[in-house]
Amino acid sequence: MDNLDFNQHTSNQYNAELEDIRNALLKMGGMVEKQLKKSIQAMLQNNEKMADKVIKKDLGINAMEVKIDEECTQIIAKRQPAASDLRLIYAIIKCITDLERIGDEAEKIAKNAKFLISEGYSCEYYKSFENLSKLVIENLSQTLNSLARLDAEEALIIAKKDEIIDFEFEKLNNDIILHMSNNPHELEKTVRLSWSAKALEKIGDHTTNICEYIIYLVKGKDIRHLDIDTIEEEYF
Amino acid sequence: MDNLDFNQHTSNQYNAELEDIRNALLKMGGMVEKQLKKSIQAMLQNNEKMADKVIKKDLGINAMEVKIDEECTQIIAKRQPAASDLRLIYAIIKCITDLERIGDEAEKIAKNAKFLISEGYSCEYYKSFENLSKLVIENLSQTLNSLARLDAEEALIIAKKDEIIDFEFEKLNNDIILHMSNNPHELEKTVRLSWSAKALEKIGDHTTNICEYIIYLVKGKDIRHLDIDTIEEEYF
Repeated sequence: MDNLDFNQHTSNQYNAELEDIRNALLKMGGMVEKQLKKSIQAMLQNNEKMADKVIKKDLGINAMEVKIDEECTQIIAKRQPAASDLRLIYAIIKCITDLERIGDEAEKIAKNAKFLISEGYSCEYYKSFENLSKLVIENLSQTLNSLARLDAEEALIIAKKDEIIDFEFEKLNNDIILHMSNNPHELEKTVRLSWSAKALEKIGDHTTNICEYIIYLVKGKDIRHLDIDTIEEEYF
Repeated sequence: MDNLDFNQHTSNQYNAELEDIRNALLKMGGMVEKQLKKSIQAMLQNNEKMADKVIKKDLGINAMEVKIDEECTQIIAKRQPAASDLRLIYAIIKCITDLERIGDEAEKIAKNAKFLISEGYSCEYYKSFENLSKLVIENLSQTLNSLARLDAEEALIIAKKDEIIDFEFEKLNNDIILHMSNNPHELEKTVRLSWSAKALEKIGDHTTNICEYIIYLVKGKDIRHLDIDTIEEEYF
Protein backbone atom coordinates (compact mmCIF):
# COMPACT_ATOMS: atom_id res chain seq x y z
CA MET A 1 0.00 0.00 0.00
CA ASP A 2 0.95 3.64 -0.30
CA ASN A 3 3.35 5.15 2.18
CA LEU A 4 2.43 7.80 4.71
CA ASP A 5 3.78 10.77 2.82
CA PHE A 6 1.82 13.68 4.24
CA ASN A 7 4.67 16.09 3.62
CA GLN A 8 5.57 15.10 0.07
CA HIS A 9 3.28 17.38 -1.93
CA THR A 10 4.48 19.74 -4.58
CA SER A 11 2.28 22.42 -3.00
CA ASN A 12 3.85 23.80 0.16
CA GLN A 13 0.52 25.34 1.05
CA TYR A 14 -1.16 21.92 0.98
CA ASN A 15 1.61 20.47 3.19
CA ALA A 16 1.05 23.31 5.64
CA GLU A 17 -2.71 22.71 5.70
CA LEU A 18 -2.33 19.00 6.49
CA GLU A 19 0.24 19.79 9.14
CA ASP A 20 -2.05 22.42 10.70
CA ILE A 21 -4.95 20.05 10.89
CA ARG A 22 -2.84 17.30 12.44
CA ASN A 23 -1.58 19.76 15.00
CA ALA A 24 -5.12 20.92 15.74
CA LEU A 25 -6.15 17.31 16.34
CA LEU A 26 -3.24 16.72 18.71
CA LYS A 27 -3.98 19.97 20.51
CA MET A 28 -7.62 18.97 20.95
CA GLY A 29 -6.44 15.58 22.28
CA GLY A 30 -4.20 17.32 24.80
CA MET A 31 -7.05 19.56 25.95
CA VAL A 32 -9.38 16.61 26.42
CA GLU A 33 -6.73 14.68 28.34
CA LYS A 34 -6.28 17.65 30.69
CA GLN A 35 -10.04 17.92 31.16
CA LEU A 36 -10.22 14.26 32.16
CA LYS A 37 -7.35 14.54 34.65
CA LYS A 38 -8.82 17.68 36.21
CA SER A 39 -12.34 16.26 36.53
CA ILE A 40 -10.96 13.33 38.52
CA GLN A 41 -8.66 15.52 40.57
CA ALA A 42 -11.63 17.79 41.38
CA MET A 43 -13.59 14.82 42.68
CA LEU A 44 -10.80 13.19 44.68
CA GLN A 45 -9.56 16.46 46.19
CA ASN A 46 -12.99 18.02 46.85
CA ASN A 47 -12.06 20.92 44.60
CA GLU A 48 -15.30 22.53 43.47
CA LYS A 49 -13.57 25.38 41.64
CA MET A 50 -11.65 22.92 39.52
CA ALA A 51 -14.89 21.07 38.67
CA ASP A 52 -16.40 24.40 37.58
CA LYS A 53 -13.42 25.09 35.34
CA VAL A 54 -13.77 21.70 33.62
CA ILE A 55 -17.47 22.34 32.97
CA LYS A 56 -16.74 25.77 31.52
CA LYS A 57 -13.85 24.58 29.39
CA ASP A 58 -15.97 21.95 27.64
CA LEU A 59 -17.34 24.71 25.42
CA GLY A 60 -13.84 25.30 24.05
CA ILE A 61 -13.52 21.64 23.13
CA ASN A 62 -16.87 21.67 21.36
CA ALA A 63 -15.80 24.72 19.39
CA MET A 64 -12.59 22.98 18.42
CA GLU A 65 -14.50 20.00 17.04
CA VAL A 66 -16.59 22.28 14.81
CA LYS A 67 -13.51 24.18 13.63
CA ILE A 68 -11.52 21.06 12.73
CA ASP A 69 -14.52 19.57 10.91
CA GLU A 70 -14.77 22.75 8.87
CA GLU A 71 -11.08 22.65 8.00
CA CYS A 72 -11.39 19.02 6.93
CA THR A 73 -14.26 19.74 4.51
CA GLN A 74 -12.29 22.68 3.10
CA ILE A 75 -9.25 20.51 2.45
CA ILE A 76 -11.40 17.83 0.77
CA ALA A 77 -13.07 20.44 -1.44
CA LYS A 78 -9.91 22.34 -2.34
CA ARG A 79 -7.26 19.63 -2.45
CA GLN A 80 -9.15 16.50 -3.44
CA PRO A 81 -6.97 14.30 -1.27
CA ALA A 82 -6.30 10.71 -2.22
CA ALA A 83 -4.60 7.69 -0.66
CA SER A 84 -2.88 8.40 2.66
CA ASP A 85 -3.95 12.06 2.72
CA LEU A 86 -7.56 11.01 2.43
CA ARG A 87 -7.11 8.44 5.18
CA LEU A 88 -5.58 11.13 7.37
CA ILE A 89 -8.55 13.45 6.83
CA TYR A 90 -10.98 10.60 7.35
CA ALA A 91 -9.29 9.49 10.55
CA ILE A 92 -9.29 13.07 11.85
CA ILE A 93 -13.02 13.46 11.12
CA LYS A 94 -13.71 10.29 13.10
CA CYS A 95 -11.25 10.96 15.95
CA ILE A 96 -12.58 14.40 16.82
CA THR A 97 -16.06 12.96 17.37
CA ASP A 98 -14.65 10.57 19.95
CA LEU A 99 -12.46 13.25 21.52
CA GLU A 100 -15.44 15.57 21.86
CA ARG A 101 -17.41 12.79 23.54
CA ILE A 102 -14.54 12.03 25.91
CA GLY A 103 -14.77 15.73 26.77
CA ASP A 104 -18.48 15.29 27.47
CA GLU A 105 -17.79 12.36 29.79
CA ALA A 106 -15.14 14.39 31.65
CA GLU A 107 -17.72 17.14 32.05
CA LYS A 108 -20.16 14.58 33.52
CA ILE A 109 -17.51 13.46 36.02
CA ALA A 110 -16.98 17.12 36.98
CA LYS A 111 -20.74 17.64 37.44
CA ASN A 112 -21.02 14.53 39.60
CA ALA A 113 -17.97 15.72 41.54
CA LYS A 114 -19.73 19.02 42.27
CA PHE A 115 -22.74 17.13 43.62
CA LEU A 116 -20.59 14.80 45.74
CA ILE A 117 -18.53 17.70 47.09
CA SER A 118 -21.67 19.67 47.99
CA GLU A 119 -22.90 16.62 49.93
CA GLY A 120 -19.54 16.22 51.67
CA TYR A 121 -19.45 12.66 50.39
CA SER A 122 -16.54 10.28 50.21
CA CYS A 123 -16.41 6.51 50.55
CA GLU A 124 -14.10 3.53 50.57
CA TYR A 125 -14.53 3.06 46.79
CA TYR A 126 -12.82 6.32 45.92
CA LYS A 127 -9.55 4.36 45.94
CA SER A 128 -10.85 1.81 43.38
CA PHE A 129 -12.28 4.70 41.36
CA GLU A 130 -8.88 6.38 41.39
CA ASN A 131 -7.20 3.15 40.24
CA LEU A 132 -9.67 2.76 37.39
CA SER A 133 -9.15 6.38 36.40
CA LYS A 134 -5.37 5.83 36.27
CA LEU A 135 -5.82 2.99 33.77
CA VAL A 136 -8.17 5.11 31.66
CA ILE A 137 -5.89 8.17 31.69
CA GLU A 138 -2.86 6.03 30.86
CA ASN A 139 -4.64 4.49 27.88
CA LEU A 140 -5.77 7.88 26.62
CA SER A 141 -2.28 9.41 27.02
CA GLN A 142 -0.62 6.51 25.21
CA THR A 143 -3.24 6.70 22.46
CA LEU A 144 -2.48 10.38 21.93
CA ASN A 145 1.23 9.52 21.78
CA SER A 146 0.68 6.90 19.11
CA LEU A 147 -1.54 9.33 17.25
CA ALA A 148 1.33 11.85 17.27
CA ARG A 149 3.83 9.20 16.16
CA LEU A 150 1.43 7.36 13.84
CA ASP A 151 2.34 4.13 15.63
CA ALA A 152 -0.23 1.50 14.66
CA GLU A 153 1.45 -1.36 16.56
CA GLU A 154 1.27 0.66 19.77
CA ALA A 155 -2.36 1.59 19.02
CA LEU A 156 -3.23 -2.11 18.74
CA ILE A 157 -1.56 -2.87 22.07
CA ILE A 158 -3.52 -0.06 23.74
CA ALA A 159 -6.82 -1.15 22.17
CA LYS A 160 -6.30 -4.63 23.59
CA LYS A 161 -5.87 -3.17 27.08
CA ASP A 162 -9.45 -1.86 27.09
CA GLU A 163 -10.44 -5.35 28.27
CA ILE A 164 -8.66 -4.65 31.57
CA ILE A 165 -10.57 -1.38 31.98
CA ASP A 166 -13.87 -3.19 31.36
CA PHE A 167 -12.91 -5.85 33.90
CA GLU A 168 -11.93 -3.31 36.56
CA PHE A 169 -15.09 -1.31 35.89
CA GLU A 170 -17.29 -4.40 36.35
CA LYS A 171 -15.55 -5.16 39.64
CA LEU A 172 -15.97 -1.61 40.93
CA ASN A 173 -19.54 -1.51 39.74
CA ASN A 174 -20.43 -4.70 41.59
CA ASP A 175 -18.83 -3.30 44.75
CA ILE A 176 -20.81 -0.10 44.38
CA ILE A 177 -24.10 -1.98 43.95
CA LEU A 178 -23.33 -4.02 47.07
CA HIS A 179 -22.53 -0.81 48.93
CA MET A 180 -25.88 0.63 47.79
CA SER A 181 -27.73 -2.39 49.18
CA ASN A 182 -26.03 -2.06 52.52
CA ASN A 183 -26.33 1.75 52.71
CA PRO A 184 -29.66 2.72 51.17
CA HIS A 185 -29.59 6.05 53.05
CA GLU A 186 -26.72 7.32 50.89
CA LEU A 187 -28.04 5.91 47.67
CA GLU A 188 -28.32 9.16 45.74
CA LYS A 189 -24.65 9.86 46.29
CA THR A 190 -23.51 6.33 45.49
CA VAL A 191 -25.51 6.48 42.24
CA ARG A 192 -23.48 9.54 41.25
CA LEU A 193 -20.27 7.66 41.95
CA SER A 194 -21.49 4.81 39.73
CA TRP A 195 -22.29 7.30 36.94
CA SER A 196 -18.75 8.62 37.09
CA ALA A 197 -17.36 5.08 36.98
CA LYS A 198 -19.54 4.43 33.94
CA ALA A 199 -18.16 7.61 32.34
CA LEU A 200 -14.63 6.23 32.80
CA GLU A 201 -15.60 2.98 31.11
CA LYS A 202 -17.16 4.94 28.25
CA ILE A 203 -13.96 6.99 27.86
CA GLY A 204 -12.11 3.69 27.55
CA ASP A 205 -14.41 2.76 24.64
CA HIS A 206 -13.88 6.09 22.89
CA THR A 207 -10.12 5.70 23.36
CA THR A 208 -10.29 2.28 21.69
CA ASN A 209 -12.18 3.85 18.78
CA ILE A 210 -9.33 6.33 18.34
CA CYS A 211 -6.81 3.46 18.36
CA GLU A 212 -8.79 1.79 15.59
CA TYR A 213 -8.71 4.98 13.52
CA ILE A 214 -4.92 5.21 14.01
CA ILE A 215 -4.59 1.67 12.66
CA TYR A 216 -6.84 2.56 9.73
CA LEU A 217 -4.79 5.66 9.04
CA VAL A 218 -1.42 3.93 9.13
CA LYS A 219 -2.26 0.47 7.81
CA GLY A 220 -5.29 1.26 5.64
CA LYS A 221 -7.28 -1.50 7.33
CA ASP A 222 -10.60 -1.02 9.06
CA ILE A 223 -10.48 -3.27 12.14
CA ARG A 224 -13.61 -1.93 13.84
CA HIS A 225 -15.97 -4.56 15.20
CA LEU A 226 -13.46 -7.36 14.61
CA ASP A 227 -12.31 -9.63 17.40
CA ILE A 228 -9.31 -7.64 18.53
CA ASP A 229 -7.45 -10.64 19.93
CA THR A 230 -7.20 -12.24 16.49
CA ILE A 231 -6.02 -9.16 14.66
CA GLU A 232 -2.28 -9.33 15.07
CA GLU A 233 -1.64 -12.16 12.65
CA GLU A 234 -4.05 -11.01 10.01
CA TYR A 235 -3.17 -7.37 9.67
CA PHE A 236 0.32 -6.67 10.88
CA MET B 1 -25.75 28.89 -1.15
CA ASP B 2 -25.70 26.03 -3.61
CA ASN B 3 -28.81 23.95 -4.12
CA LEU B 4 -29.14 20.31 -3.18
CA ASP B 5 -28.58 18.86 -6.61
CA PHE B 6 -27.39 15.34 -5.86
CA ASN B 7 -28.82 14.02 -9.10
CA GLN B 8 -27.59 16.69 -11.48
CA HIS B 9 -24.21 15.29 -12.47
CA THR B 10 -23.17 14.69 -16.03
CA SER B 11 -21.94 11.26 -14.93
CA ASN B 12 -24.82 8.84 -14.47
CA GLN B 13 -22.49 6.52 -12.62
CA TYR B 14 -21.72 9.23 -10.04
CA ASN B 15 -25.44 9.91 -9.59
CA ALA B 16 -26.01 6.23 -9.00
CA GLU B 17 -23.19 6.07 -6.43
CA LEU B 18 -24.57 8.98 -4.41
CA GLU B 19 -28.06 7.50 -4.60
CA ASP B 20 -26.74 4.10 -3.45
CA ILE B 21 -24.99 5.55 -0.47
CA ARG B 22 -28.03 7.59 0.57
CA ASN B 23 -30.14 4.46 0.32
CA ALA B 24 -27.63 2.50 2.37
CA LEU B 25 -27.77 5.18 5.08
CA LEU B 26 -31.57 5.08 5.16
CA LYS B 27 -31.53 1.29 5.25
CA MET B 28 -29.11 1.34 8.17
CA GLY B 29 -31.40 3.86 9.92
CA GLY B 30 -34.37 1.53 9.40
CA MET B 31 -32.45 -1.43 10.81
CA VAL B 32 -31.40 0.53 13.89
CA GLU B 33 -34.96 1.75 14.46
CA LYS B 34 -36.20 -1.84 14.33
CA GLN B 35 -33.49 -2.94 16.77
CA LEU B 36 -34.58 -0.27 19.25
CA LYS B 37 -38.26 -1.18 18.99
CA LYS B 38 -37.52 -4.88 19.43
CA SER B 39 -35.21 -4.40 22.40
CA ILE B 40 -37.97 -2.56 24.25
CA GLN B 41 -40.64 -5.03 23.17
CA ALA B 42 -38.42 -7.87 24.41
CA MET B 43 -38.16 -6.24 27.84
CA LEU B 44 -41.83 -5.29 28.21
CA GLN B 45 -43.13 -8.61 26.91
CA ASN B 46 -40.58 -10.84 28.67
CA ASN B 47 -39.47 -12.16 25.31
CA GLU B 48 -35.99 -13.58 25.76
CA LYS B 49 -35.76 -14.91 22.21
CA MET B 50 -36.41 -11.45 20.82
CA ALA B 51 -33.68 -10.01 23.06
CA ASP B 52 -31.27 -12.64 21.72
CA LYS B 53 -32.15 -11.69 18.15
CA VAL B 54 -31.42 -8.01 18.83
CA ILE B 55 -28.03 -8.88 20.33
CA LYS B 56 -27.14 -11.06 17.34
CA LYS B 57 -28.34 -8.55 14.78
CA ASP B 58 -26.07 -5.80 16.14
CA LEU B 59 -23.20 -7.39 14.21
CA GLY B 60 -25.03 -6.66 10.96
CA ILE B 61 -25.33 -2.99 11.87
CA ASN B 62 -21.65 -2.77 12.73
CA ALA B 63 -20.79 -4.32 9.36
CA MET B 64 -23.01 -1.81 7.63
CA GLU B 65 -21.20 1.10 9.27
CA VAL B 66 -17.84 -0.19 8.01
CA LYS B 67 -19.23 -0.77 4.50
CA ILE B 68 -20.77 2.71 4.18
CA ASP B 69 -17.59 4.33 5.50
CA GLU B 70 -15.64 2.48 2.83
CA GLU B 71 -18.03 3.60 0.10
CA CYS B 72 -17.74 7.21 1.29
CA THR B 73 -13.93 7.21 1.09
CA GLN B 74 -14.12 5.66 -2.38
CA ILE B 75 -16.48 8.37 -3.60
CA ILE B 76 -14.26 11.10 -2.15
CA ALA B 77 -11.17 9.59 -3.83
CA LYS B 78 -12.80 8.90 -7.19
CA ARG B 79 -15.25 11.78 -7.58
CA GLN B 80 -13.70 14.62 -5.60
CA PRO B 81 -17.10 15.88 -4.47
CA ALA B 82 -17.67 19.56 -3.81
CA ALA B 83 -20.44 21.75 -2.39
CA SER B 84 -23.66 19.88 -1.60
CA ASP B 85 -22.23 16.48 -2.64
CA LEU B 86 -19.41 16.92 -0.17
CA ARG B 87 -21.85 17.93 2.55
CA LEU B 88 -23.89 14.83 1.79
CA ILE B 89 -20.86 12.56 2.13
CA TYR B 90 -19.75 14.39 5.25
CA ALA B 91 -23.19 14.12 6.85
CA ILE B 92 -23.34 10.42 6.02
CA ILE B 93 -19.91 9.79 7.58
CA LYS B 94 -21.11 11.49 10.76
CA CYS B 95 -24.64 10.00 10.84
CA ILE B 96 -23.52 6.38 10.59
CA THR B 97 -21.37 6.78 13.72
CA ASP B 98 -24.44 7.90 15.66
CA LEU B 99 -26.63 5.21 14.12
CA GLU B 100 -24.11 2.53 15.04
CA ARG B 101 -24.04 3.83 18.61
CA ILE B 102 -27.84 3.86 18.80
CA GLY B 103 -27.55 0.21 17.75
CA ASP B 104 -25.13 -0.37 20.64
CA GLU B 105 -27.56 1.21 23.12
CA ALA B 106 -30.41 -0.97 21.79
CA GLU B 107 -28.16 -3.98 22.31
CA LYS B 108 -27.56 -2.87 25.92
CA ILE B 109 -31.33 -2.61 26.49
CA ALA B 110 -31.69 -6.14 25.08
CA LYS B 111 -28.94 -7.45 27.38
CA ASN B 112 -30.54 -5.80 30.42
CA ALA B 113 -33.90 -7.23 29.29
CA LYS B 114 -32.40 -10.73 29.28
CA PHE B 115 -31.18 -10.24 32.83
CA LEU B 116 -34.52 -8.84 34.02
CA ILE B 117 -36.46 -11.63 32.31
CA SER B 118 -34.20 -14.28 33.86
CA GLU B 119 -34.92 -12.76 37.28
CA GLY B 120 -38.66 -12.66 36.59
CA TYR B 121 -38.57 -8.95 37.37
CA SER B 122 -41.14 -6.31 36.62
CA CYS B 123 -42.06 -3.18 38.52
CA GLU B 124 -44.39 -0.20 38.54
CA TYR B 125 -41.88 1.89 36.57
CA TYR B 126 -42.14 -0.24 33.45
CA LYS B 127 -45.04 2.00 32.43
CA SER B 128 -42.93 5.18 32.72
CA PHE B 129 -40.11 3.40 30.92
CA GLU B 130 -42.50 2.50 28.11
CA ASN B 131 -43.68 6.10 27.87
CA LEU B 132 -40.10 7.37 27.69
CA SER B 133 -39.30 4.76 25.03
CA LYS B 134 -42.27 5.95 22.95
CA LEU B 135 -40.89 9.50 22.91
CA VAL B 136 -37.44 8.26 21.96
CA ILE B 137 -38.72 5.98 19.18
CA GLU B 138 -40.97 8.74 17.82
CA ASN B 139 -38.04 11.17 17.68
CA LEU B 140 -35.83 8.62 15.94
CA SER B 141 -38.55 7.71 13.40
CA GLN B 142 -39.25 11.34 12.59
CA THR B 143 -35.52 12.02 12.28
CA LEU B 144 -35.16 9.21 9.75
CA ASN B 145 -38.13 10.65 7.83
CA SER B 146 -36.55 14.08 7.66
CA LEU B 147 -33.28 12.47 6.64
CA ALA B 148 -35.12 10.78 3.76
CA ARG B 149 -36.87 14.02 2.77
CA LEU B 150 -33.91 16.28 3.57
CA ASP B 151 -36.24 18.40 5.69
CA ALA B 152 -34.10 20.70 7.84
CA GLU B 153 -37.04 22.57 9.40
CA GLU B 154 -38.48 19.30 10.66
CA ALA B 155 -35.03 18.22 11.91
CA LEU B 156 -34.79 21.41 13.98
CA ILE B 157 -38.23 20.78 15.50
CA ILE B 158 -37.22 17.23 16.44
CA ALA B 159 -33.88 18.36 17.90
CA LYS B 160 -35.73 20.79 20.14
CA LYS B 161 -37.91 17.96 21.47
CA ASP B 162 -34.89 16.23 23.02
CA GLU B 163 -35.42 18.53 26.01
CA ILE B 164 -38.67 16.68 26.74
CA ILE B 165 -36.85 13.33 26.63
CA ASP B 166 -34.22 14.63 29.06
CA PHE B 167 -36.95 15.93 31.39
CA GLU B 168 -38.87 12.64 31.35
CA PHE B 169 -35.65 10.68 31.86
CA GLU B 170 -34.76 12.77 34.92
CA LYS B 171 -38.22 12.18 36.38
CA LEU B 172 -38.05 8.43 35.80
CA ASN B 173 -34.52 8.29 37.13
CA ASN B 174 -35.49 10.05 40.36
CA ASP B 175 -38.39 7.63 40.77
CA ILE B 176 -36.07 4.69 40.24
CA ILE B 177 -33.55 5.96 42.80
CA LEU B 178 -36.37 6.41 45.33
CA HIS B 179 -37.56 2.90 44.55
CA MET B 180 -34.02 1.61 45.15
CA SER B 181 -33.91 3.26 48.57
CA ASN B 182 -37.18 1.69 49.55
CA ASN B 183 -36.42 -1.73 48.09
CA PRO B 184 -32.73 -2.44 48.64
CA HIS B 185 -33.36 -6.19 48.26
CA GLU B 186 -34.09 -5.79 44.53
CA LEU B 187 -31.37 -3.30 43.87
CA GLU B 188 -29.42 -5.26 41.28
CA LYS B 189 -32.52 -5.49 39.11
CA THR B 190 -33.51 -1.86 39.56
CA VAL B 191 -29.99 -0.82 38.59
CA ARG B 192 -30.45 -2.66 35.29
CA LEU B 193 -33.71 -0.81 34.71
CA SER B 194 -31.91 2.50 35.33
CA TRP B 195 -29.18 1.50 32.84
CA SER B 196 -31.83 0.88 30.19
CA ALA B 197 -33.45 4.24 30.94
CA LYS B 198 -30.02 5.85 30.58
CA ALA B 199 -29.61 4.07 27.22
CA LEU B 200 -32.88 5.67 26.04
CA GLU B 201 -31.67 9.09 27.06
CA LYS B 202 -28.39 8.47 25.21
CA ILE B 203 -30.31 7.42 22.09
CA GLY B 204 -32.13 10.75 22.31
CA ASP B 205 -28.75 12.52 22.24
CA HIS B 206 -27.55 10.54 19.21
CA THR B 207 -30.84 11.31 17.45
CA THR B 208 -30.28 15.01 18.08
CA ASN B 209 -26.80 14.71 16.57
CA ILE B 210 -28.35 13.23 13.41
CA CYS B 211 -30.82 16.14 13.26
CA GLU B 212 -27.89 18.56 13.43
CA TYR B 213 -26.19 16.78 10.53
CA ILE B 214 -29.40 16.98 8.48
CA ILE B 215 -29.47 20.75 9.06
CA TYR B 216 -25.80 20.97 8.09
CA LEU B 217 -26.45 18.95 4.95
CA VAL B 218 -29.44 20.97 3.79
CA LYS B 219 -28.58 24.46 5.06
CA GLY B 220 -24.79 24.27 5.08
CA LYS B 221 -24.71 25.55 8.67
CA ASP B 222 -23.06 23.75 11.56
CA ILE B 223 -25.39 24.27 14.53
CA ARG B 224 -23.72 21.79 16.88
CA HIS B 225 -23.12 23.03 20.41
CA LEU B 226 -25.20 26.16 19.86
CA ASP B 227 -28.17 27.01 22.06
CA ILE B 228 -30.85 25.26 20.05
CA ASP B 229 -33.67 27.52 21.25
CA THR B 230 -32.09 30.56 19.62
CA ILE B 231 -31.38 28.97 16.28
CA GLU B 232 -34.61 29.54 14.39
CA GLU B 233 -34.12 33.22 13.75
CA GLU B 234 -30.45 33.07 12.97
CA TYR B 235 -30.31 30.23 10.51
CA PHE B 236 -33.65 29.63 8.86
